Amino acid sequence: MSPKITTELLKQLRQVMKNPKFVQEPVQAYIVPSGDAHQSEYIAPCDCRRAFISGFDGSAGTAIVTEQHAAMWTDGRYFLQAAHQMDNNWTLMKMGLKDTPTQEDWLVSVLPEGSKVGVDPFIIPADQWKRMSKVLRSAGHDLVPVKENLIDTIWTDCPQRPCKPLITLDLSYTGVSWRDKIVALRSKMAERKVMWFVVTALDEVAWLFNLRGSDVEYNPVFFAYAVIGMNTIRLFIDGDRMMDPPVREHLQLDSTLEPEFKIQVMPYGSILSELQAVGAGLSPKEKVWLSDKASYALTEAIPKAYRYLTPYTPICIAKAVKNAAETEGMRRAHIKDAVALCELFNWLEKEVPKGTVTEIIAADKAEEFRSQQKDFVELSFATISSTGPNGAIIHYKPVPETNRTLSVNEIYLLDSGAQYKDGTTDVTRTMHFGTPSAYEKECFTYVLKGHIAVSAAIFPNGTKGHLLDSFARSALWDCGLDYLHGTGHGVGSFLNVHEGPCGISYKTFADEPLEAGMIVSDEPGYYEDGSFGIRIENVVLVIPAETKYNFKNRGSLTFEPLTLVPIQTKMIDVNLLTEKECNWVNEYHQKCREVVGAELERQGRHEALRWLLRETEPLARVQ
Amino acid sequence: MSPKITTELLKQLRQVMKNPKFVQEPVQAYIVPSGDAHQSEYIAPCDCRRAFISGFDGSAGTAIVTEQHAAMWTDGRYFLQAAHQMDNNWTLMKMGLKDTPTQEDWLVSVLPEGSKVGVDPFIIPADQWKRMSKVLRSAGHDLVPVKENLIDTIWTDCPQRPCKPLITLDLSYTGVSWRDKIVALRSKMAERKVMWFVVTALDEVAWLFNLRGSDVEYNPVFFAYAVIGMNTIRLFIDGDRMMDPPVREHLQLDSTLEPEFKIQVMPYGSILSELQAVGAGLSPKEKVWLSDKASYALTEAIPKAYRYLTPYTPICIAKAVKNAAETEGMRRAHIKDAVALCELFNWLEKEVPKGTVTEIIAADKAEEFRSQQKDFVELSFATISSTGPNGAIIHYKPVPETNRTLSVNEIYLLDSGAQYKDGTTDVTRTMHFGTPSAYEKECFTYVLKGHIAVSAAIFPNGTKGHLLDSFARSALWDCGLDYLHGTGHGVGSFLNVHEGPCGISYKTFADEPLEAGMIVSDEPGYYEDGSFGIRIENVVLVIPAETKYNFKNRGSLTFEPLTLVPIQTKMIDVNLLTEKECNWVNEYHQKCREVVGAELERQGRHEALRWLLRETEPLARVQ
Repeated sequence: MSPKITTELLKQLRQVMKNPKFVQEPVQAYIVPSGDAHQSEYIAPCDCRRAFISGFDGSAGTAIVTEQHAAMWTDGRYFLQAAHQMDNNWTLMKMGLKDTPTQEDWLVSVLPEGSKVGVDPFIIPADQWKRMSKVLRSAGHDLVPVKENLIDTIWTDCPQRPCKPLITLDLSYTGVSWRDKIVALRSKMAERKVMWFVVTALDEVAWLFNLRGSDVEYNPVFFAYAVIGMNTIRLFIDGDRMMDPPVREHLQLDSTLEPEFKIQVMPYGSILSELQAVGAGLSPKEKVWLSDKASYALTEAIPKAYRYLTPYTPICIAKAVKNAAETEGMRRAHIKDAVALCELFNWLEKEVPKGTVTEIIAADKAEEFRSQQKDFVELSFATISSTGPNGAIIHYKPVPETNRTLSVNEIYLLDSGAQYKDGTTDVTRTMHFGTPSAYEKECFTYVLKGHIAVSAAIFPNGTKGHLLDSFARSALWDCGLDYLHGTGHGVGSFLNVHEGPCGISYKTFADEPLEAGMIVSDEPGYYEDGSFGIRIENVVLVIPAETKYNFKNRGSLTFEPLTLVPIQTKMIDVNLLTEKECNWVNEYHQKCREVVGAELERQGRHEALRWLLRETEPLARVQ
Repeated sequence: MSPKITTELLKQLRQVMKNPKFVQEPVQAYIVPSGDAHQSEYIAPCDCRRAFISGFDGSAGTAIVTEQHAAMWTDGRYFLQAAHQMDNNWTLMKMGLKDTPTQEDWLVSVLPEGSKVGVDPFIIPADQWKRMSKVLRSAGHDLVPVKENLIDTIWTDCPQRPCKPLITLDLSYTGVSWRDKIVALRSKMAERKVMWFVVTALDEVAWLFNLRGSDVEYNPVFFAYAVIGMNTIRLFIDGDRMMDPPVREHLQLDSTLEPEFKIQVMPYGSILSELQAVGAGLSPKEKVWLSDKASYALTEAIPKAYRYLTPYTPICIAKAVKNAAETEGMRRAHIKDAVALCELFNWLEKEVPKGTVTEIIAADKAEEFRSQQKDFVELSFATISSTGPNGAIIHYKPVPETNRTLSVNEIYLLDSGAQYKDGTTDVTRTMHFGTPSAYEKECFTYVLKGHIAVSAAIFPNGTKGHLLDSFARSALWDCGLDYLHGTGHGVGSFLNVHEGPCGISYKTFADEPLEAGMIVSDEPGYYEDGSFGIRIENVVLVIPAETKYNFKNRGSLTFEPLTLVPIQTKMIDVNLLTEKECNWVNEYHQKCREVVGAELERQGRHEALRWLLRETEPLARVQ
């Protein structure tokens, strides 16, 4: 991976930063955030402005360009990747390390007095605008909205915004109709005394209307906004996809409906002016509910006194708690996914020793096996297929320049997942196809102990996920090891593989309490720069637990693994496990045998079945 | 404990809330916070306004009185106590429970449109003012400062503000002179480019000048403010105590000093006008540093553009990291404290079976034994001496109405501590003087497992204490038990027994990272309402740990117990302990024997020594 040469681009950007055609007054700094106008984590090619200007294409990062400097903030998952992809024009700001300044503090330290800092108001979330603008103002600078996106002005071959056909989901997948979702939303609005709700996140629009799309790779969403009133529904969406008969029927666009369920379809680009019209027509006490992460542009469309901002929207919270239809779908998807991975690992075991399997070939093979499964739609994120030192690049994606051949001498880490019409998967397994070293086994076993500590944790109803994060680290900490990422994220149901409002992280303080039906990942790891990476990830469902005293009827929760893929026992130093941990592994493998074994049998995949049975032999602990 | 009858007082308060003599416009609600003008947790009798109006005298709680309602917010430590102390005029708002509204949300739900909510601007911290005022404003109400404290207007027999003599501490106790502390503070000020620093917390004033007082019971502080400029020092303090020759000498008030170390002594009451004068005289870029918890009144004295607010002041952070002199002092104090408790428990073991020892007698006896130790000053908080059901009242203090007799049939919980000139102690032990039930032993052992999990935890340098909180709960959670308080708080060095900026709590998200030299408590518990309370508390010092891999040179930390008092082995169900936990107990008891045993020997306390030796016999675990 050679870095992108950005000297010329930065020169052009610095020119437009002073060009009165684009900016009212010259800006001394320009911020290029990661997201799109919907604050999406995964974005369409036309929105990859930060990658265009810097070369760094990880999923999280913010670039700031001043007349003298170009700096990139990103987190521990991406330190190595960003360092590889960016040229010497860029300074890497490692977030989470003690001495790394915040963007605001850094700006204050480098800017000349009374500077203007520009940003596209559609791209920056309102809460971030507020925080930055406050710090900058108190240091004598100004954060200013620059209407025209300055990257777009220099990005001559910027791709078009996608506008692909929609998929409709019936009740067997969603469990609840879009009408009932609107009814529930309006009742939450009535509770909070708000008259309007603005849906800005793409997965929230998709979930609300039981529609899916493919405008963004890996995330089955489509570019749209919605504005829900107590008696009106407006859907802002482009293209002739709303002419598609199944979509029209699903949304009952041509039926005679009660007026409050009649959907008005409007152009995507008209959201700002329509919202401004809503804002201008409000009577006192008529509030408008927005996420505090909605864009500054849309938030400003509503006069301040009429805004009702919350960190999580009622849709985000409702979406996180999966109903029976969704949970069953997720279970089915994970069984199919396990079948594909048993096939893959069986194949790898045979092929790797021949020295012909590269990271890219392995990733492609994983996709091939998954695509053979029913209702497969696409992958849920770019497959992390990494061997040896590449495994230490936490969100690595193999490309021809970095593509390594798998061997019997190196650890192989595969973090992959798929979108099926009935659910979303995300699983990481770390394997050795030869003989792992004692140190590799030691590290793997600590990671496994952390994985089990979270998966088997019992906690009172209402506990926030971040309170479980340290359980995943304790075994690593005891010997002076750690990993620089959170332990888990929410997972959508045939939706985004990363979703709020719950998670398991030392960083997430605003997470909502865990409740039965929520689905998160459990993925501790350990990374040795330049040598190897280890991660063990299951997707787990929050379920009620049985405890002796049940928290005085508050209720007990624990997790049930939905992922059912063997954990390589060859990598485990059994003597480092407690009896309880050992039993956990054996029971987990027994369940893989039963559930996935039956499906392999049903699909006539006998060789993979034999592999599964071999890999799930019970561990024996020396007493 | 019978509740305070508040009908008449509330009537009077509701009258002054409308009386133009005291309020510019009538206020429909009046907030009575817990603290004083320094946001102290422990307050002088003249500042106990919330207790006066409601009867509830716990250390934390906020009262709000409207024309129709009177409501009290407090946390899990005080649910039972508040319910006992308040009459039917009051509604108890249990903070931390899911359905309890915030004060702001509650106000919005009960107030008529366009209401005014009054509060004393000296008593409410600026950050809280900001938060409340925002929510109230967005709901159409106004938070207004009421200059005259409305409680004081109806509190006819309000005691005088104390003004007691000062104690000077020399270098052997403090390790650093006040001049060097001023130099260090000014260098922090220069780093942040601020010209003035306002010291508002009483323990910060005391620490900065190496002075102690006794204006507030249990906390060796005195009423004062300080304003530190780059070349000036102003100390706002009342009374003739500054005429005391040792104090004059300590502060070098009569010496010819470099002008930047010359202390100007000013009346306590002149802080507001002096600060307003500072605020009025600022040139652009001259910032004033305040805690964001300083009072709204003082914060408003500085024009907004000139304020530099942080959650923790540089004094708070410096004070938390104890130097060698302070650490050694804390060690000495804890050994003396252990001697006193060995005497006490030996005495209780003999006396309790006679049926003559009440909670109050036991508490008094504890104080008597402590007062025999060198450099004893006073207790560090009101002794929690509780037996049977009283033990479930987390911050219980025995009074004649509730005073129970200790017996061989009930658990006894003693949470107590002292101020010695060389350090502050805080220790909880839970004992049974007869035969504990299997259930009592089971609960005690889970609490002990939690205590050990924190005390023996190893974690990377820079970890925040709140990430360790769940370790203390894990064993309890496994069987469906929990406790509704944090696990630990910072402890001052001959200063407040509760201090920031570190702690171990599921609630504390703004805590500063732990570093070697910080001192916190480790005190998980379990409480069975109506039956018993269990808590095991040590004060522990953060120290470097040795780990196999040392976090890639980031450094490893762990805790060393400073408290050295036996943990009653009779209460332990050894079969619930792991081998590691069993070894921890045995090693801890071995250290108690060696260190405290030697001191008991030296003091000629042979009977208590024999008690210590018996209580520290090694546990034997059945394999």
